[in-house]
Amino acid sequence: MRLSDAAIAGDRRALAQLLTAVENATPVGEAATRRLYPLAGRAHIVGITGAPGSGKSTLVAALTAEARAAGRSVAVIAVDPSSPITGGAILGDRVRMQVHAGDRDVFIRSMASRGHAGGLAATSVAVATVLDAAGFDLIFVETVGTGQSEVEVAAAADTTIVLEAPEMGDEVQAIKAGLLEVADIVVVNKGDRPGAHRTASQLRAMLVASAPREPADGRPRPKRPTVLITTASTGAGVPELLAALDRARPTESAVEPAPARLARARTQIGAVLQERLAARLGDAVHAARTRDVTDDVANHRLDPYAAADGLLSELFPGAGPDASADDA
Amino acid sequence: MRLSDAAIAGDRRALAQLLTAVENATPVGEAATRRLYPLAGRAHIVGITGAPGSGKSTLVAALTAEARAAGRSVAVIAVDPSSPITGGAILGDRVRMQVHAGDRDVFIRSMASRGHAGGLAATSVAVATVLDAAGFDLIFVETVGTGQSEVEVAAAADTTIVLEAPEMGDEVQAIKAGLLEVADIVVVNKGDRPGAHRTASQLRAMLVASAPREPADGRPRPKRPTVLITTASTGAGVPELLAALDRARPTESAVEPAPARLARARTQIGAVLQERLAARLGDAVHAARTRDVTDDVANHRLDPYAAADGLLSELFPGAGPDASADDA
Repeated sequence: MRLSDAAIAGDRRALAQLLTAVENATPVGEAATRRLYPLAGRAHIVGITGAPGSGKSTLVAALTAEARAAGRSVAVIAVDPSSPITGGAILGDRVRMQVHAGDRDVFIRSMASRGHAGGLAATSVAVATVLDAAGFDLIFVETVGTGQSEVEVAAAADTTIVLEAPEMGDEVQAIKAGLLEVADIVVVNKGDRPGAHRTASQLRAMLVASAPREPADGRPRPKRPTVLITTASTGAGVPELLAALDRARPTESAVEPAPARLARARTQIGAVLQERLAARLGDAVHAARTRDVTDDVANHRLDPYAAADGLLSELFPGAGPDASADDA
Repeated sequence: MRLSDAAIAGDRRALAQLLTAVENATPVGEAATRRLYPLAGRAHIVGITGAPGSGKSTLVAALTAEARAAGRSVAVIAVDPSSPITGGAILGDRVRMQVHAGDRDVFIRSMASRGHAGGLAATSVAVATVLDAAGFDLIFVETVGTGQSEVEVAAAADTTIVLEAPEMGDEVQAIKAGLLEVADIVVVNKGDRPGAHRTASQLRAMLVASAPREPADGRPRPKRPTVLITTASTGAGVPELLAALDRARPTESAVEPAPARLARARTQIGAVLQERLAARLGDAVHAARTRDVTDDVANHRLDPYAAADGLLSELFPGAGPDASADDA
């Protein structure tokens, strides 16, 4: 039996194996993604990001419990940037999810960042696609950090939740402005702390003040984000958040795909293009030339544009370099 | 006079204009980079990263003062991920550098993240290359966050400083392990606080315990990172840090480029390849087809591999798709 058939038939071990193949962009991962792709497109993919200490994992656990109580299946992708090179995983946070350990309609996946071309966002989209095909209703993509990559991961979802905690520090406040730009729903968590309502009011004021400008990625922002207050540790506000998520879910149209879906399609196509290029550059025919050209750029004997154009015309004979420009 | 000639002749306004062109990957930026590329390769590029609150900006200001006192010119690239979409800049932090406002051998550049293909790391490398060609001896690349992209930016330097403050929180500790993997020098800042020496000892123990494994990017880690203590606000430990930086500077060889330089060359070539591909996909001949294919992937009528291979064979006729694999 194919891994992909077993995975969609409900074999969780096969699903986990398949996701590893997809994360590492192996040939098996590619073949399975291609086969499963037509089955995907039904899940609601929800990104959750926010500064360390805002309580993301606790909120994901509370949302999962709420969704399960309503009979919905849930997958959680925890994107962990803690180890950029070896790919670590913060397993401690996962402890809160152990209440769901015996429940086969909850699937938790910690994702490291290496392997897949196109970076974290492309890898998380690829993983979410397989979970979508495997039939999960709700897919939470939780990112640990607040860096550029982590924000991109959360923004690649259908709906993006940005989590804030009351009274965060100065540098975090500065980061907040950037986070808010990708938010569909802003949640002030730890709502039982003093200052939670004031933080929510401040956020609403910030959102009103900020011009509803068009994001650079072409994703329209049709309406101002909702601001909600939760206390994930007690569950207060969580049913309201789940209801808000359902309302925020983009309506599908066969003619005009939702902007978030178009953005994900671009991310995925771009990642494959990068993979294909990298594979050709490293294959038996071109590896030595690629190495020489890289050495020349490193030693400043050749500029990177000349290097790239030279490699492109060797990889794809007949495709000449683009016209050069001058800064005169 | 060309912008690039004016920039290397010492015209700071021309330099700033040129850097904007390079950041936005305009034709002028490309032409200038190509012209200046042979002049670059002499600066020591130093990445500085660390959690919010560890005092990066203060340390950069202190290192700048120390280097200036020794007659060396300094450029600072402050990579600001606070706004992933509109590209903001934390200007408050720059106030500490105002002591150098009248000094033309100090150049400060806040860099937003958009524009350039290949992401933050590629853009910061491109900006550093121009500053290198313009003759700055020391180039500090300071990143504000601790996400994947920010770590990649700092790791793209010749020498990477990871900054820690005494007694940071739990989630930050978890992030630390990942940061340490890219460090050449680990600095415990705020050395006048209780716990600074204990934090330094803990870090040394962590570094001894962690196996010196080969990083995935092929960059060797020949020796364990040094751990130093500074108090950037008073300048204590800063001369020792500058001396350690000088010792860490990779020795150049015309035959075998330093690993950090090879990594930067790969980053730059990869960014240009992505730009070239994106330009072709969006040009008058291919834009409509690219849009249709993206729609099909968004609607799950076509998988991203088939889409990418189809686009590649249209862009570069004669280059067929790679052989397919199966997950049987």
